[in-house]
Amino acid sequence: MMKASTHIFEKGVFIEDTATIVGPKEKAGPVGKYFDKHFDDDILGQPSYEKAEIKMHVSLIKYLMNKTKHDPKDVDLCISGDLLDEIMGTSLTMREFDIPFLGAYNACATFAECLITGAMFLTTGKFKRIICSTSSHFSTAERQYRFPLELGNQRTPLAQWTVTGAGGTMLNNTGGKVRLTSCTIGQVVDYGVKDANDMGACMAPAAKTTLSKHLRELGVSPDYYDLILTGDLGEAGSRLLKRLMSEEGIPLGDNYNDCGVLIFNRVAQDVGQGGSGAACSSTVFNGYVYKKMLSGEFKRVLLVPTGALCSKTSILQGESIPGIAHAVSFEVV
Amino acid sequence: MMKASTHIFEKGVFIEDTATIVGPKEKAGPVGKYFDKHFDDDILGQPSYEKAEIKMHVSLIKYLMNKTKHDPKDVDLCISGDLLDEIMGTSLTMREFDIPFLGAYNACATFAECLITGAMFLTTGKFKRIICSTSSHFSTAERQYRFPLELGNQRTPLAQWTVTGAGGTMLNNTGGKVRLTSCTIGQVVDYGVKDANDMGACMAPAAKTTLSKHLRELGVSPDYYDLILTGDLGEAGSRLLKRLMSEEGIPLGDNYNDCGVLIFNRVAQDVGQGGSGAACSSTVFNGYVYKKMLSGEFKRVLLVPTGALCSKTSILQGESIPGIAHAVSFEVV
Repeated sequence: MMKASTHIFEKGVFIEDTATIVGPKEKAGPVGKYFDKHFDDDILGQPSYEKAEIKMHVSLIKYLMNKTKHDPKDVDLCISGDLLDEIMGTSLTMREFDIPFLGAYNACATFAECLITGAMFLTTGKFKRIICSTSSHFSTAERQYRFPLELGNQRTPLAQWTVTGAGGTMLNNTGGKVRLTSCTIGQVVDYGVKDANDMGACMAPAAKTTLSKHLRELGVSPDYYDLILTGDLGEAGSRLLKRLMSEEGIPLGDNYNDCGVLIFNRVAQDVGQGGSGAACSSTVFNGYVYKKMLSGEFKRVLLVPTGALCSKTSILQGESIPGIAHAVSFEVV
Repeated sequence: MMKASTHIFEKGVFIEDTATIVGPKEKAGPVGKYFDKHFDDDILGQPSYEKAEIKMHVSLIKYLMNKTKHDPKDVDLCISGDLLDEIMGTSLTMREFDIPFLGAYNACATFAECLITGAMFLTTGKFKRIICSTSSHFSTAERQYRFPLELGNQRTPLAQWTVTGAGGTMLNNTGGKVRLTSCTIGQVVDYGVKDANDMGACMAPAAKTTLSKHLRELGVSPDYYDLILTGDLGEAGSRLLKRLMSEEGIPLGDNYNDCGVLIFNRVAQDVGQGGSGAACSSTVFNGYVYKKMLSGEFKRVLLVPTGALCSKTSILQGESIPGIAHAVSFEVV
């Protein structure tokens, strides 16, 4: 018998509230009005983009505690991450808070990892309230993974645009208007793609593996959900996923979308295939999706953040770029 | 009321077995005979040290499954990490296994994070068997955090020597000779140390914070444990911790030691202050400590892996290097 990767949260794991903060480009995008806060200058008055990303993540966590009227002493744990080497942005963010911290890294699928870990920890009954958060920044990601911005490199057609922002969820085990109902923990899937400018193709096979497992193990069809939302496959990657799912015998319908597709107007905003980054799913979910769930537009949502597992070094050494995707389902209470 | 950071594992979380694999220098050290496997050539026939580290981590996980007579289908989850940018070594290790994967990063405290997360997941009753593992490699760490080896840089007096190795624990909820009894999840502690060649000083304050919290919250004194073992403070860092604990009113006795001190003969092996790295605590615990627990020499052990939170970029930008430490306690069943 194969083991199940899908786990049900029978006991209540609830969203107490969410918070989002984004840059000017994200604010100007199609779902801009759903973000809580934005800034007009993406360096936030800091001497470096890395310090700007840290300032953004610190602001996010403070704002989430303000919104929920909690002090650090009310929060049992932060499970958080980002895309910088050694998740440096998050580690330095956390020195501002007297809150226990576990650092997560599954590339742009990190937000799902945070939610799954948070939900499991709450299920033990040992924790009352956990913050799950991620950040990313266009300028720190470009410099680290690709080229210095000053070089003015031309972008390739399949490239995506890293979301500048931070998104966080306050989970608790006492109550909220939306609850986590299940999760599927993904595995690393490697189709041998080596193009660091085609992240959608690196991640789509992992999204297919996790999504089809999730649906099969729960015994539901895609239309069980009002919305199935991958993290950051972008336009081309989403088309690839639809094709892979059709080949798998589980065609996706109009209820399927992708955070990277939703967050930008990709033609008018010149973002290649769409948004990407660890904050792509965390801002779109905590902003747009959560608010649409509160207003009753979506009752059941499946979020499938997707990550491309590479580093500058692995790419230079000729390694392929495998993907990973985890699924988390939500339901209006 | 302050929240507690310490959690008791009332339900059984057991060590089914452990595995370790190390390089020639670690094998030649004082606890060398307790490691399961070693190799004589630290590049393992690979074209790069990064690929060597991946090969080592893959071998470790295969060996751990062999020892416990399990297939990937019997293992519900791997929670693993390393020190490479984007935990690249672990991510590429995991493409070899059909096992769900969550990537952990708390620098050299990662092994504790893996154990804590694994134990919490097992406590939910949703998982039967989880692998917790970390790797590190002297040559990949030197190149990434400090200088290319080819440069032949002189080492500073407070420097440590990154352990080349990988260590893993197979946790289950059914039975074993050693069980996990509690954990204390640490927070980021920043004393403003900026010297990347003095990791002990960066991490000792975090070790003090977590260790004193652990003892106070459980209401026990240090001699409750047969062994209290920090991760990789090294000789100078351990002295610093002893001093900080004395100032805290909880002096440490002869039952205190450090994995980084234990693993090398620091004078004869010319390793500066001792061993360090994500595999320092995972090899010493899974090799030396676990076997001494099986033989009855230690009945109660507190492991406190320690991590220094920095990256090349954070150091170049003048950031301080905060530390983090998590504690996990074990008892012979």
